[in-house]
Formats: sequence, structure tokens, C-alpha cells
Amino acid sequence: RLLHFLHENFRGQKQPTFVDQSIKDLQVGTFSNIASIHEDVPVIVALNVFVERRVSALPIINHLGRVVDIYAKFDVMNLAAERTFNNLDITVKKALEHRGQWYKGVYTCQETSTLRTVMDRLVEKQVHRLVVVNEHEQLVGVVSLSDVLKFLVLDTHQRLSPHEGTS
Amino acid sequence: RLLHFLHENFRGQKQPTFVDQSIKDLQVGTFSNIASIHEDVPVIVALNVFVERRVSALPIINHLGRVVDIYAKFDVMNLAAERTFNNLDITVKKALEHRGQWYKGVYTCQETSTLRTVMDRLVEKQVHRLVVVNEHEQLVGVVSLSDVLKFLVLDTHQRLSPHEGTS
Ligand SMILES: Nc1ncnc2c1ncn2[C@@H]1O[C@H](COP(=O)(O)O)[C@@H](O)[C@H]1O
Ligand SMILES: Nc1ncnc2c1ncn2[C@@H]1O[C@H](COP(=O)(O)O)[C@@H](O)[C@H]1O
Repeated sequence: RLLHFLHENFRGQKQPTFVDQSIKDLQVGTFSNIASIHEDVPVIVALNVFVERRVSALPIINHLGRVVDIYAKFDVMNLAAERTFNNLDITVKKALEHRGQWYKGVYTCQETSTLRTVMDRLVEKQVHRLVVVNEHEQLVGVVSLSDVLKFLVLDTHQRLSPHEGTS
Repeated sequence: RLLHFLHENFRGQKQPTFVDQSIKDLQVGTFSNIASIHEDVPVIVALNVFVERRVSALPIINHLGRVVDIYAKFDVMNLAAERTFNNLDITVKKALEHRGQWYKGVYTCQETSTLRTVMDRLVEKQVHRLVVVNEHEQLVGVVSLSDVLKFLVLDTHQRLSPHEGTS
């Protein structure tokens, strides 16, 4: 029954299914109280936000209030790699310069984006989250792998009796 | 003072510093109540563990009790990519076969590994965590980026007054 349900929802149906609904309507993601940082704050501030908020990445906002980048836990480790921990007072912007040419910018979506679009983009870009922005590139939310998986599991449970869900 | 401290600890000192101590002694990582799965469980079981335990990856244990692989949230998304959500009853082992030849195996360390070794390995392998195993390849713990960052921040705070820590 679980398989049947998922099959129906992911394949060849004509009417819209949940993956064609927007992440906002499905409430997949976090849309309030987003932890973010200004591009000019020192790295040590970002570290503190990581620890206090227990999130894996922070959208970076410029002086115009636009989302311009993202700072992930892994970026901090690159400081470690270069043994530049004596530079924890450099700005986040500066710390990210090492990424150089290959960096393609922060991947975003809108709250009107469908779950399918978001999932495809996460996989295509091999990233753990998209930053949700409005038409002015202002921060609206974050949608991460964790949110998508939680939705899939909870959604499945709601439609199935518990023992069917795990059998 | 913060910079001085970090500088002293990361550069050219002769006596051992904290990065040369073992992760076990420093208590960097999680060493009890590790969420793990058997390689023969269905993917849906792994999904439920992700949601309930809020961890980003699960060590995979074989029938001999050895750590043989790791299942991360991102691996679930690959099922989504291939539109094979109708296969949530396949085993985790089967689900991971798609990684094919390029997969190098799960990256591990021991609880006697130094923090420096762990950090270097995380960066070199570009992974978010190492599985801590004993000499029989049995599961002992997990040490993730989150643990290292938390340690660095807390450790810094302990030695500094709060306003110096964030200035
Ligand atoms: N910067 C952030 N601010 C607030 N919530 C976030 C942030 N990043 C991720 N989240 C949410 O935190 C949860 C865990 O996400 P993650 O850390 O990406 O596994 C998910 O519900 C995300 O939507
Ligand atoms: N499979 C796991 N079981 C128990 N704890 C874990 C597991 N994976 C990570 N952790 C811990 O959970 C915290 C968050 O790690 P992470 O999800 O990798 O950001 C860290 O303290 C890790 O040591």
C-alpha cells in the first residue's frame, strides 16, 4: 500500500500530486526565524551562530538586504585546512574568497517553487539546501534535505497505519 | 587575545597542544547511543531513523557487526532523482549500489585519533563526518563537522571572557 501510494504519486498521473504543489503550501522548509549573517561579520560570529542554532548553513546577506551567498559548516573546515585559524576575525566574505572561480553562487528557489522542482534542484546541484528568496532576492526561508525527508516520512505515515508504514 | 590563543595553539609550538590530543580525551564527537542501521533494512526504516534522531548520516553494520558503509540524507535524495520512491522497501545495501565504482568506502577513524588527524581527514575527503571504529571495525562513535566546530567555539569561550570572544 505504501508502495502503491508512492507509485501513484510519483508516476504518470494526470492531476497534480503533492510534488506539484508549492513548498509554501506543503510547508516543506523553514519560513520564519531564519538564522543568517551579514557578509561583513567576522567568521567567529558565524561559528557561534552554528553552535547556538544547530543549523548546517547560513544565508549571507549584503548591505542591500539581498541574499548573496551561503556559509556552510564545511567552509569553516577549509580555514582549518589552511591552518588559518588565527584569522577568525576576517569577514565571512573574505573567508569565502578561496573558493575562487569554480563557485557558482548560492542556489535559491522561491516559496512558489514546487516540491518537485526543489528536489530536482537539490539533486542536480548536489547541495543540502536551497535558500528561499522573494523576487527582490530577499531572504524568505530555507528548504533542506532534512525538510524534504521529514515531509516524505510524515506524509506517508499520515496516509498509512503505522505498521504498514514500516513493514 | 583570541587570535593569540589560536595562533599559539595552531602554530609551531613544541609541546603537544589540543589538536594533538585524541578525540576521546577531548570528547569531540558522540560516543554513545549512536544511531546505526543494518545493511539489510529497508530504506523506509532508515528514513524514519533520520527523522526521529535528527542526524545527518547512519553507519551501516553488516551481519558480523562490522561497519561497512554509511547512509547519508543525500543518498535518499538520489532515490528521488531516479524516481524510484516506489522502491522504499529495497534494502539500504541495494539502494547504495548506484554509487558504483567511484565509491571509496566509508571513512573512519579511531577514538585514539588526534583532533588534527580527524580535521585533516574531514577536509581531505570532503566529508561531513567520520565513523569512529575499534580495531575490529566495530562501531564506537561518530565525529562530525558539528562536533569539531562546537569544540573550537566552546574551547575558545572557556579561555576568554565573553565580550572578547565575539569582538
Ligand atoms: N539558516 C537557517 N535558519 C533557520 N533554519 C534553518 C537554517 N538552515 C536550515 N534550517 C532548518 O533547520 C532544519 C535542519 O536543516 P539542516 O541543518 O539543513 O539539516 C530544517 O528544518 C531546515 O529548514
Ligand atoms: N548516527 C549518529 N548517531 C548518533 N549521533 C550522531 C550520528 N551522526 C552524527 N551524530 C552526532 O550528532 C551531532 C550532529 O552531527 P551532524 O548531524 O553530523 O551535524 C554531532 O554531535 C554528531 O556527533
